[in-house]
Amino acid sequence: MSDDLKKGLEGVLVAESGLSVIDGDAGELVYRGYTIEDLATGASYEEVLYLLWYGHLPDSDELEAFASEMAAEREVDEAVLATVRKMAEADENPMAALRTAVSMLSTTDPASEDADPTDEEMNLARGRRITAKIPTIVAAFTRIRNGDDPVAPRADLGHAQNFLYMLNDKVPDDVLADVFDQALVLHADHGINASTFSAVVTASTLSDLHSAVTAAIGTLKGPLHGGANQDVMEMLKEVDDAAMDPLDWVKDALDSGRRVSGFGHRVYNVKDPRAKILGERSKELGEAAGSLKWYEMSTTIEEYLMEQKGLAPNVDFYSASTYYQMGIPIDIYTPIFAMSRVGGWVAHVIEYIEDNRLIRPRARYIGPDPSETTFAALSER
Amino acid sequence: MSDDLKKGLEGVLVAESGLSVIDGDAGELVYRGYTIEDLATGASYEEVLYLLWYGHLPDSDELEAFASEMAAEREVDEAVLATVRKMAEADENPMAALRTAVSMLSTTDPASEDADPTDEEMNLARGRRITAKIPTIVAAFTRIRNGDDPVAPRADLGHAQNFLYMLNDKVPDDVLADVFDQALVLHADHGINASTFSAVVTASTLSDLHSAVTAAIGTLKGPLHGGANQDVMEMLKEVDDAAMDPLDWVKDALDSGRRVSGFGHRVYNVKDPRAKILGERSKELGEAAGSLKWYEMSTTIEEYLMEQKGLAPNVDFYSASTYYQMGIPIDIYTPIFAMSRVGGWVAHVIEYIEDNRLIRPRARYIGPDPSETTFAALSER
Repeated sequence: MSDDLKKGLEGVLVAESGLSVIDGDAGELVYRGYTIEDLATGASYEEVLYLLWYGHLPDSDELEAFASEMAAEREVDEAVLATVRKMAEADENPMAALRTAVSMLSTTDPASEDADPTDEEMNLARGRRITAKIPTIVAAFTRIRNGDDPVAPRADLGHAQNFLYMLNDKVPDDVLADVFDQALVLHADHGINASTFSAVVTASTLSDLHSAVTAAIGTLKGPLHGGANQDVMEMLKEVDDAAMDPLDWVKDALDSGRRVSGFGHRVYNVKDPRAKILGERSKELGEAAGSLKWYEMSTTIEEYLMEQKGLAPNVDFYSASTYYQMGIPIDIYTPIFAMSRVGGWVAHVIEYIEDNRLIRPRARYIGPDPSETTFAALSER
Repeated sequence: MSDDLKKGLEGVLVAESGLSVIDGDAGELVYRGYTIEDLATGASYEEVLYLLWYGHLPDSDELEAFASEMAAEREVDEAVLATVRKMAEADENPMAALRTAVSMLSTTDPASEDADPTDEEMNLARGRRITAKIPTIVAAFTRIRNGDDPVAPRADLGHAQNFLYMLNDKVPDDVLADVFDQALVLHADHGINASTFSAVVTASTLSDLHSAVTAAIGTLKGPLHGGANQDVMEMLKEVDDAAMDPLDWVKDALDSGRRVSGFGHRVYNVKDPRAKILGERSKELGEAAGSLKWYEMSTTIEEYLMEQKGLAPNVDFYSASTYYQMGIPIDIYTPIFAMSRVGGWVAHVIEYIEDNRLIRPRARYIGPDPSETTFAALSER
């Protein structure tokens, strides 16, 4: 045992993985050998899921079989929907509601509770079902909360397209469906980030995939991880509501020591490649709507922070204005992150438990020494 | 970044902690300076919770205030009970049901979703509420599954006593209540074990305590962690059902390369001190019932494995026959472990986030190199 404290486990290698790699200095992200730029422009979310889960990009037949199996699994059991309804009516936080609903999916999952937890085929099928159902849960929760009835999924629509359809009770146009699909591709995997690591820690006791994904959703919820995209949009709205020049706002923010959400990353030292791609989408959506307000506000803040602090934006900084311009409610940005990242969670769990090792680190004890501590019964305290 | 792979993070120090320390060579476990032997014989579970959460053993006034606050928080909201009912009726796995129900507790938790996630007072109150409600959930689930109505908690009973009351609709005698209370004390904390670590990983994104405890329940569920106590009892029952001499059974098991549950531990090299204490309880319960069958079966297996393999029993090996002789259903042994360990989860989360650092390790990439990978569109695959 080394005496060095590895708080945060920064730079500690916990596993080998063939899934994704980040070059933080070059600003490159790669899934199984393919650059994120190629995948974002040339592959759908379903193709990327297939790549992460099966190790290669699907041909047309493979994709059709996979996508139609997944599309057929979008329906969510009535008991889970009843629980979603109660949470929506109680105005539960959307990530908390997703955590509970995904946890409850195990109740009716067809794979047996007694199945070997390392059975890859069983886990792939289970992961596919969870991934298929998350959009249904998020859309139902959002609609019920607004007093609307949930919209049943349509198996003839793509994964991204169907989510927007269930959310708005309207099939989205191709531009919106494509932007959303691209956002899902960009968020699908990102090495052993905190939520993925938490999924792997949970799975390393040979617990099940529902436990691992539920843990990861709870981890993603935090503002230091997935919660950041919501924080970015709330910040941009604050600038807009105050009718301030974004440059004045960001100067004030820095002067007052305020942390600006969506900047800096444990792994990237330069601009996150995903932020570059989503920044373009944010601009296009602004152009289509006839106002570059949100995009320009974002670039002004970006340029100033780079100049003054050397801080580059991460993916959350541009997913915020992209989703906002698509009319998506701010507090489901993080559930949308989960809707995509579940692909990476499932892939990493399956990869890790293939050659499993229980994850059990240690803490350095700094409490009282037993030789100097005397126990007294309650009556003598 | 070091190039060493730390798979399983064995021996890696991830935090400093004043909560508990294990001397794996001496077979010692200490909570905040007090030996587990002193606490097991001289303190109730409520006193141990207070010790872990507030840093010192309570005096009588402190204990009374704390225990009565917690006792008043045992009731579980109707919406959560309705979800528990649906899961019980669908014969959900008890740990999965507990994971979902605890996750759902956030829906009606009085602390605001906007509260500062590092607010210690808020987290202590939230942790107390979660801890108070877990026994109610476990008992309700178990009863509904058997076709019985849940029994409402009684605030005039102790934590251990009230659980047995809710489980059986009968106030337990003092012997049973004391044994159960002692079992809760023994399981309350155990350094940065896998479930505790998963709670801390989740909390390190500044997510909330419900997310952290939910993650930990899912982690504890695995057979390499909490799930082991259930496996031990199923094994003992198998020996009994086959009417085999336990010595023959364990010889056969070793000869056929079967892993015997409840032996060996990442941290202990000698007999787990908790196993010693629970072994005595198991023996006493057998004596009171007029049959040492389960106890003697356990010691026979223990002696043989120590002699042949140098393997010592861990806590799960003796909690199994203890709970069995108390008439507790086998598949809620792990939920009972959670009922106790939640104290440690809450304590470690609060301690870690006081000086938080996002836990985000890395993986060594072993996938294809992007320079050797050429992307082809779907139509060309």
